[in-house]
Order: sequence, then structure tokens, then C-alpha cells
Amino acid sequence: MKHSEKPRPGGPVTNTRTIIITLLLLLVGLTAGCLQDPFHVWDRVLGKSKSGASYFSKQSKHCADIPPISASEFDGRQRDLANALHATNASAYIAEPGASALYFTNVTTTQWKLTERPLLLIISPEVNAGSVLPKLTILAPQFEKSRASILPIPFDNIQFILWPEEQDPYQVLVDSIDLPEGSIYIDSATRFFIVDGLQKAYEKGQVLTAPPEVTKLRERKSSHEIDIMRCANEANLLTIRQVHKQLYIGIRESEAQSMIASALTEMGLENGACITLFGEDAALPHGGGTDKQLGVSDFALFDCTASLHGYWSDVTRTVALPDSQIPSDHQEIWKHVRSAQGAALAQAHEGVVAKSVDAAARKALAEFQLDGFLTHRLGHGIGLENHEAPYLNGGSEAVLTPGNCFSDEPGVYIEGEIGVRLEDCFCIDESGQPVLLTKGVGGQTSSPWSP
Amino acid sequence: MKHSEKPRPGGPVTNTRTIIITLLLLLVGLTAGCLQDPFHVWDRVLGKSKSGASYFSKQSKHCADIPPISASEFDGRQRDLANALHATNASAYIAEPGASALYFTNVTTTQWKLTERPLLLIISPEVNAGSVLPKLTILAPQFEKSRASILPIPFDNIQFILWPEEQDPYQVLVDSIDLPEGSIYIDSATRFFIVDGLQKAYEKGQVLTAPPEVTKLRERKSSHEIDIMRCANEANLLTIRQVHKQLYIGIRESEAQSMIASALTEMGLENGACITLFGEDAALPHGGGTDKQLGVSDFALFDCTASLHGYWSDVTRTVALPDSQIPSDHQEIWKHVRSAQGAALAQAHEGVVAKSVDAAARKALAEFQLDGFLTHRLGHGIGLENHEAPYLNGGSEAVLTPGNCFSDEPGVYIEGEIGVRLEDCFCIDESGQPVLLTKGVGGQTSSPWSP
Repeated sequence: MKHSEKPRPGGPVTNTRTIIITLLLLLVGLTAGCLQDPFHVWDRVLGKSKSGASYFSKQSKHCADIPPISASEFDGRQRDLANALHATNASAYIAEPGASALYFTNVTTTQWKLTERPLLLIISPEVNAGSVLPKLTILAPQFEKSRASILPIPFDNIQFILWPEEQDPYQVLVDSIDLPEGSIYIDSATRFFIVDGLQKAYEKGQVLTAPPEVTKLRERKSSHEIDIMRCANEANLLTIRQVHKQLYIGIRESEAQSMIASALTEMGLENGACITLFGEDAALPHGGGTDKQLGVSDFALFDCTASLHGYWSDVTRTVALPDSQIPSDHQEIWKHVRSAQGAALAQAHEGVVAKSVDAAARKALAEFQLDGFLTHRLGHGIGLENHEAPYLNGGSEAVLTPGNCFSDEPGVYIEGEIGVRLEDCFCIDESGQPVLLTKGVGGQTSSPWSP
Repeated sequence: MKHSEKPRPGGPVTNTRTIIITLLLLLVGLTAGCLQDPFHVWDRVLGKSKSGASYFSKQSKHCADIPPISASEFDGRQRDLANALHATNASAYIAEPGASALYFTNVTTTQWKLTERPLLLIISPEVNAGSVLPKLTILAPQFEKSRASILPIPFDNIQFILWPEEQDPYQVLVDSIDLPEGSIYIDSATRFFIVDGLQKAYEKGQVLTAPPEVTKLRERKSSHEIDIMRCANEANLLTIRQVHKQLYIGIRESEAQSMIASALTEMGLENGACITLFGEDAALPHGGGTDKQLGVSDFALFDCTASLHGYWSDVTRTVALPDSQIPSDHQEIWKHVRSAQGAALAQAHEGVVAKSVDAAARKALAEFQLDGFLTHRLGHGIGLENHEAPYLNGGSEAVLTPGNCFSDEPGVYIEGEIGVRLEDCFCIDESGQPVLLTKGVGGQTSSPWSP
């Protein structure tokens, strides 16, 4: 409206009223949305759903139908452990909260945070009418009796040994349970002061790292464990694909990283986090650099981990966008990494030695003089820990057996220039064949543009 | 404006224009604030500062002037360690990232997350022209060389030993540095598989828990360390007092917990978290119960920890609100806990045995038949770990020396009814006297209504 114009009665006021009402509505909507749920303000004002449906609509809760480990499965694990202890003449297996305690007793470090005060889970074999049965004892701080007693351990018959603050917890344990001469096994992740304290109190015997007879129990995954991991890995990959569609040239690593972490949570996975590296930043396999903006000639690397019922998924994709202009030599490197991943998978069968799987990937890269740029091992075991034994490295004499699950993650890293890594996990099935955990959603990637 | 009235040219339109402009400004302000910093939208629109000044104005960044540990202090620590190793005929001290590695080398678990791949910090004594000098070696995964080399370790002369993925890291270490027969010390928080791996590779000698000659170095705090802890404890208590003023009858434990965690961050402290328990929930010293709403007859217990430059503060207050109606017997319990805290402090001097300090608090409670309800130890050492040696418990023969810092935190816990705990930290000064770390802001509480 120019200064010289006079307002016309009726017209401008009606328009003005509409403007005010519109502005007021926007203000009210924005305020309500903002105060309650700040990141979805515009979705609310524009009528979109709170779940962020505009971004990640279809796959939400991909694994809603996958049940956690049942009480009878825990019972079976304890029985197997009791038998392994009996067979190797050990009188107990001891773990503090962590992956092994979770495997045998359903206790996590979320439920019981590690402190200087030991809480130990002790499983001993009891021979009863010819059969070996497990006995579960918990050593807990006396003043935490109530909190320890509500740990979600699926057993009826638990013996609690409570150590008072003024006494040596290890001596209390050794004095309370009948430990004969010989040996007890301890989970190797236990902190040394606990092992040292136990050894000083257990004068009659030795505290030893649990032997293969025990550690192999966790390494051989059941079909239910594999179902959980399969679904988690599928959901992980589906999430990467959804976020891939939201990327744009210029986005920062930190922004993409936040976006994908939220998306993993929306997908129903827990502890979701992704190493997110663009262009030459990806040349350091575990990152540690800048907060780079995605350039038009950059690959974007996402190495995503997330868990379901305590079991981990691990998927890596190195992607390009529709409007990326990736140099052809970088596209070649991508293809060679993809070939190496396939070559390793083809080598992984029941009975082969782990180091030969690592070697297969290197051999494939060597054809193009790229083997020197695969600076890390090929892969790791995966289960209740994201990285666990057995490992796929050049020194591993472990023999692959059904139920073993691994990551297959070759990469090429040229410092200052480029990093490409591709990762899918697989398990050796009962017929001895490798089965990709991402197979149900397409398995290995075929191109940087279609993860 | 009634329907029958005609708009007056100039007047209403001018008013309307003002309204539109105001609404537009509000809308722009709100949108900008909302998208960038959602929790401070109204502060921004109304012109308040981003720091949330309306809530916590005066004490923000209470410790802005307290510097972190300097390079020369780290140098002194390493020299003291080298001397202790030389004096006890040990050829090395080894730690993985954690509090001890932070003390000697400035490496934290935030900078280097613990994984199955060992990164070890090794300090050895070198005798040079009659004086003992420290030598720092880092064992790191070969493929992480670049990331390891940017760790903020304040030393010029670091030897890196890089272990390839296919080799045994411990064997690589033992083969690379000259370890004579005898013993090496290891930090007791190290995970057992590392100790076990080192022992298997070090065939000529023994891997032992570091003895008192080494552990006492960290237990004796310098004046700078005490300055940091004093400021952190003051800021912690100031935060509790500020949040105390924001509480109301009906607030949930989780709401109060979030409020105080944010406030600790605004205060400039890191890793702030508070055990927050109302009424009978506080009867379990470490909680684990419901998300109770604060009742009119409930005490509210806040046990807050937060760090500054890696050093911890730990303050507990059990408070009432102006409109609380606390039963008189509960008020009596509060007073007795307060007396026990003072009695313990009065006992804590250079040369006394730690267990006698614990006993002093119990004796004070015993006068009122309440000693049976102090179910945990009186206190713990504090420094780079929130709980560390030496401990104040009924079994501790440790002798208090200048530079030792402790929590003094008696409590009374009656399950199903009430929990009261009061905590302030103190250090033994150079004259052998206990000095409260909260003294600069008033020290111990005098009443549940004035924390």
C-alpha cells in the first residue's frame, strides 16, 4: 500500500482481520508445538503426525514381533554351562554384570552399573542323581539387598550372599560357598581388582580365564538369537536407506549423525549410533576429525550399530547422492571393496580357519593393488557384544562352526583422499553355509546410489 | 469493536498495523528461537539471555577461573611414578584409559573408548646421570596410529608401539620394550583379559597389582587438585540450593532429576547427575523404585555428582519445602544424621585410622538407637573417580594423611518409611585438619529448609 492511498473501509480491515487471525493461529500452533515437542513444530502446525511420519513412516518397529530370550532359554544356557564346568573339573564360573552375565543370567550393566563394590554372579555345577544342574549364587553389597533382589533374573532358586561394607567381599564369598581345591573360571572382561581379590581369598585354588569349553557357549548362537540379530540388522539397513534419501550436498557430518541416530530409535532399536564420515574424513576408519560438510565429489560413510533385546546389529554403507559427482577412480575403489566383501563371504564356511576369510578379502583387493589399504581386520564376532570372539583377522586360528556370527567389513583407506567400507553381518547356518543377516532386505549393496 | 461501528480511517488501521507487526515479530522471534534453541523460546522472545538467566542467574560458571591440570603438573606426576617404580624394583607401570591413565597421562575414556583392542599407556623409569626419569610408551592398534597420535598427552617424547591386527598385542609390547626379569605393575581397574594377555607374554616376570607406593600418589591430592574439587563441590551445592527453590509439592522425581541435571550443566560442571528420591523411596540408598510425586510430608533427597576438569564433586542434601509438613520424628532423624556427619568430621585428622571415622558417625547415631539404620559405609575417597580409595568403612585400616579427600555421608534408612542422607566432602590439609570442600559456600546444612 502506497502512502498516497487511503484505506478503503471494509476491504483492508477484513483482509487485516484474516491476516491477524492467521497469524494468531500460527502463533498458537507454533507455541503449543514448540513448548511440548520442539523438533516437530512445523510438522504439527502443518498437520503432520508426532511420530515424524513424514520421514520414517513405513518401517517403524520393524522388529515388534521378535520376542526377547525366554526363561527356558536362560535355563538351557545355565545347564550347558554347568555341564562344561563339570566336564573341566571347575567348581564355579564367575562374572560381573556385562555381556557374559547377560547371556547366563539376564543381568545388564544398565540394571546394575559397575562400581567399586562388586556384584558377582556365580554359577556352579551340582551333580544330582547323575545329572548336572546349575546353581546360581549372587554376591551383593548387603545394603543393596533390596535392589539386588529385584534384578530380573529368570530363576526361582537363587542364593544371595551379602557382604557387609566393613568386610572383604571375596573372603565373604569364599567362606560362604564350598569351593574345593582346583580352579574357578572368571569372565575375561572382569576388572582385575576383582580377579585379584578373589585369588587372594581362594587360597586353595586358582582363578582362571574361562576356557574355550565355556566361551564357545556364547559364540554358538541359537536360532532365536539369530532371529533377533537378523531383524536388528535388517532394521539397521532400512534406517540407513531412509536417511540416505534425506541427505543433501552441504549437510554436516554431525547433522547426518544426529538424524540417523534418531531414526534408529524410531525404528525400535536401542543404543543406535553411527560413525558418520564424509570424503577424506573416512580415511580414518574410526574417524576423529572434522565436522565436514558433504561435498559433491564425496562419498558418505555410515557405520551403524544398534541393539535389539541386547543383541547388536552392525551395518556399514558408503553412499553417494543422486547429484553427487564421484570421481571414477573412487567409484572403482568402491567396486573393489564390494568384490572383496563378496570374496570373503564366499570363503566363510563351516570348518574353515578364520584367518582364511580375512585373507580372501585381501586377495580380492590385491588384484588391484589395494590390499595395502585394508588396514584393519576383516571382521569380528557379534552378539551380545558388538565386537566379540571369534575374530576374522590374519592371525586367528579359530575354526568357523554353525552358530558363529561375524561382520564382513572390508575397506580401503587412503589418508587425505578417501575411505570406503562396506559391512554386512552373517552367521554360519546348521548346514555350514554363510547366511547374511541383511538378506531379508536385499543383502549386500549393489551401488553407492542404492545402499 | 462492535459490528455496528464503522472503522475510523487512521485509527483502527494504525492499531491493526501495530498488531500485525507485533504478531509478525513474535512469530519470527518464536520461530527463530524455537528452531535453534527450543527450551529457551520465551526467554528469547521476551529478551532474556540464552543462559537461562531467569532460573540460575548468579552462579553460572562458578568455576570459570579454575584452570585444568598443567603440563608441568603431569610431568611431576610421571617423575614421582618413575621414582616409585625404581624404588620398588619394578620395570613398568601399565594402565588402559581410565582414572589412572588420566592422572598420569591426560588420556580419558571419552577420548579413547575402551574396546577389545588394547590401547595401553606404559611408564618406565630410566636412570640417567643419577636421576630417575619417566619414559612414556603407548601401545596402540596399528590402524589407529593417526587417532592415537592426536591424543592430548602433554609430553614431547612418546614412543609409539603399534600392533598389527593379526598379531598378539601383548607379545608385540614385550618384544618391543626391554622388560627385565622381575615385575611390572598394572592399574587394578584394567580388564582381566589384558592382564592375562600381558602375563602370558611376559614369561620372565610377574604382572602385579600396583602396590601402595604407586596408588598413594593419586590418593594424595595437590593444592591445585583440591582447588578444582573445592570449586566443583561449591558449584554442586549452589545448584542444589537453586533447584530447591524451584521445587513444589507434586513434582515427580524424574522432573526434579532432569531439572537439576540441566542446572549442573548450566553451572559449568560436566557429567552432572543426581539420585533423586522422595519420601520412602529414599530408604533404598541408591534408589531403584518408583517415580514418586513429592508429598507434603516427604523429604526430598538429592545426591548429586558432577565433575570439573575430570575431578568429581559429590553433595547430598535431604530437603523440605516451605509448605512441607514433615512429621516431627522425621525431623528428629534428620537432626541426628546431621550430628553424625559433624561427629565424623571431628574425628577425621591426619594419623587416625579410617575405620575410626566411620565409627564416630555410628556412635553418634547409636545414642538415639539409629546406628542400625546406617546400612552403608560412612564415605569414600574422591578425586578423578567419584568413588576411589581410601574408603571410610568399618574395616579400613588406612591412615588419614594430608591430601586425602573423602565424602562424609551418613544416612538413616528405614524401609517403607524414610531415608535421610547428608553429604559433604572434605580433605585433610597440610596441618592435618579436615577442611570441607563446601566451606566457601557455607558448608554443612543447618536445616532441611536451608540446604
